[in-house]
Amino acid sequence: MLQAPVLPSWNDGAARSALLRLVAAVCDEHGPYYVPPHERVAVFAHDGTLCCEFPLPVHALFIGTRLEQLAARRPTLRDLHPFSAFLREDLPRVHGLGWRGIVQLGLVVHAGLPLDDFAERCAAWLAAAAHPWLGRPLASCCYLPQLELLAFLRAHGFTPFIVTAGDSGVVRAIAHRVYGIPPHQVIGTCARTRIEDVDGVAQLVKLAQEERHVEGEEKVRSIARHIGVRPLLAFGNADRDLAMLRYVAAGAGPRLALLLHHDDAQREFAYDSGFALNPLDEALERAASLGLQVVSMRRDWRTVFGPA
Amino acid sequence: MLQAPVLPSWNDGAARSALLRLVAAVCDEHGPYYVPPHERVAVFAHDGTLCCEFPLPVHALFIGTRLEQLAARRPTLRDLHPFSAFLREDLPRVHGLGWRGIVQLGLVVHAGLPLDDFAERCAAWLAAAAHPWLGRPLASCCYLPQLELLAFLRAHGFTPFIVTAGDSGVVRAIAHRVYGIPPHQVIGTCARTRIEDVDGVAQLVKLAQEERHVEGEEKVRSIARHIGVRPLLAFGNADRDLAMLRYVAAGAGPRLALLLHHDDAQREFAYDSGFALNPLDEALERAASLGLQVVSMRRDWRTVFGPA
Repeated sequence: MLQAPVLPSWNDGAARSALLRLVAAVCDEHGPYYVPPHERVAVFAHDGTLCCEFPLPVHALFIGTRLEQLAARRPTLRDLHPFSAFLREDLPRVHGLGWRGIVQLGLVVHAGLPLDDFAERCAAWLAAAAHPWLGRPLASCCYLPQLELLAFLRAHGFTPFIVTAGDSGVVRAIAHRVYGIPPHQVIGTCARTRIEDVDGVAQLVKLAQEERHVEGEEKVRSIARHIGVRPLLAFGNADRDLAMLRYVAAGAGPRLALLLHHDDAQREFAYDSGFALNPLDEALERAASLGLQVVSMRRDWRTVFGPA
Repeated sequence: MLQAPVLPSWNDGAARSALLRLVAAVCDEHGPYYVPPHERVAVFAHDGTLCCEFPLPVHALFIGTRLEQLAARRPTLRDLHPFSAFLREDLPRVHGLGWRGIVQLGLVVHAGLPLDDFAERCAAWLAAAAHPWLGRPLASCCYLPQLELLAFLRAHGFTPFIVTAGDSGVVRAIAHRVYGIPPHQVIGTCARTRIEDVDGVAQLVKLAQEERHVEGEEKVRSIARHIGVRPLLAFGNADRDLAMLRYVAAGAGPRLALLLHHDDAQREFAYDSGFALNPLDEALERAASLGLQVVSMRRDWRTVFGPA
């Protein structure tokens, strides 16, 4: 009988083999490494791991659109730092804000919105947004090999989670639409909220204060708080993910911590330590000694993007 | 063809009818109130809503067992407040600590344990623990009508969550074993953690500080942070749940907020405003005006517990 090929967009190599080996080991009911389905948890970083983050991660693109709307009503924003960096599309200045600076700009820009409204705006924006350089809808800037991996893991009883330093509301909109991952399987950076009466209805309204910023060790603590078990697999692409990768790799039994290296200027982009927003430096240097499996976009992926 | 009866442990009445009506409305693909499965979320309080909380909620019983173990090694604990309240089984004094006082005692008692260990201890304890007064295993002190409701909701595409002021680790052990609810669908009070190297392995270790206490409006904020959509159904049993019930009831379209009243001294216990640990007072008084559906344990439930 003909079977559908497994992970067809992954080239044969150490990364693909490690993935197949992990899944086979934990699903083998008679083997020494069997793990029951409810403990088969996989965690993924988002921007740069599941979809393109260059030149800007998705929450930053969303802030740009929202600022355009605001500036149409208040043109003075165009001359006001840091809004002007976005509104004048001054990429070096936007990068200069850093990831956290952009997140904090988002806190200001989205403050006052009820969460229900915010979710609707994110979904509507995503349905229409295009990548600034790739010339394709943003919703199709996800990586085909990762969509296959998510499907493969789910077919083997895994529950996938996204653990992101990006805005949880924006990533939830994408996760649902693009990866089929429900909102409660997205753990992300978010604003504090307050219950307010809006037109007679109790709403949670976003405040301009950070509730939590999910990077570094906070990724690990968030996994414990939200998921409650140590994942079997972690996939990241930046130093921001190193603590999570190490925590997963340190678990008993078979575990797999993978690190995507954007080394493919032909099909996507080539960058690592030099990308100010999400540098990959220490994690790459220590990958071998820490037992992290590096995934080369250029060598390990047969295809990068699916049809637009 | 014979069909299995629906919610057989629920008596006919307003509460059962409201449950059937909600589920029919949101599942009717051609009706005006259809909700796609990924937005069918239900939230339940834990102690007193899904299982017996009288005379003590489960995390308090667990603290009692742990204190017994500690006191076997350090007998002086028996004379030390507040440990002595537990160790001498002085119920009025334990109640006098209040819910939060007991939680904070738990923070102290469990501090220093790696989370993985803590989860194992909880599961092992639960497998052996018995209810102090009911004379049945603790794992069978859950309410049969609620097990049926969980199964009914799942069969109709709902994802159930527990939102608890109790210790998330303890409730996760029960949720998995008793309700078939995975750990990541339990949102609860928890301790801060720190990554530490324990025998060469990166572990998250519990600290003696509170990370969050999930009651009142914090239940609502936790739902937004963790789940990301406003639930269609909420079920609680105390004033501590009122904000969550109101938030769910305030959503657009059909929503259902239910409030369990422990008015059954015959089969379980009869208490409300007088239970110091988890009083039901304001919520009951305002139920009618706020559109909350009161569930009387005595009248609405045909059976309370399943076989021991």
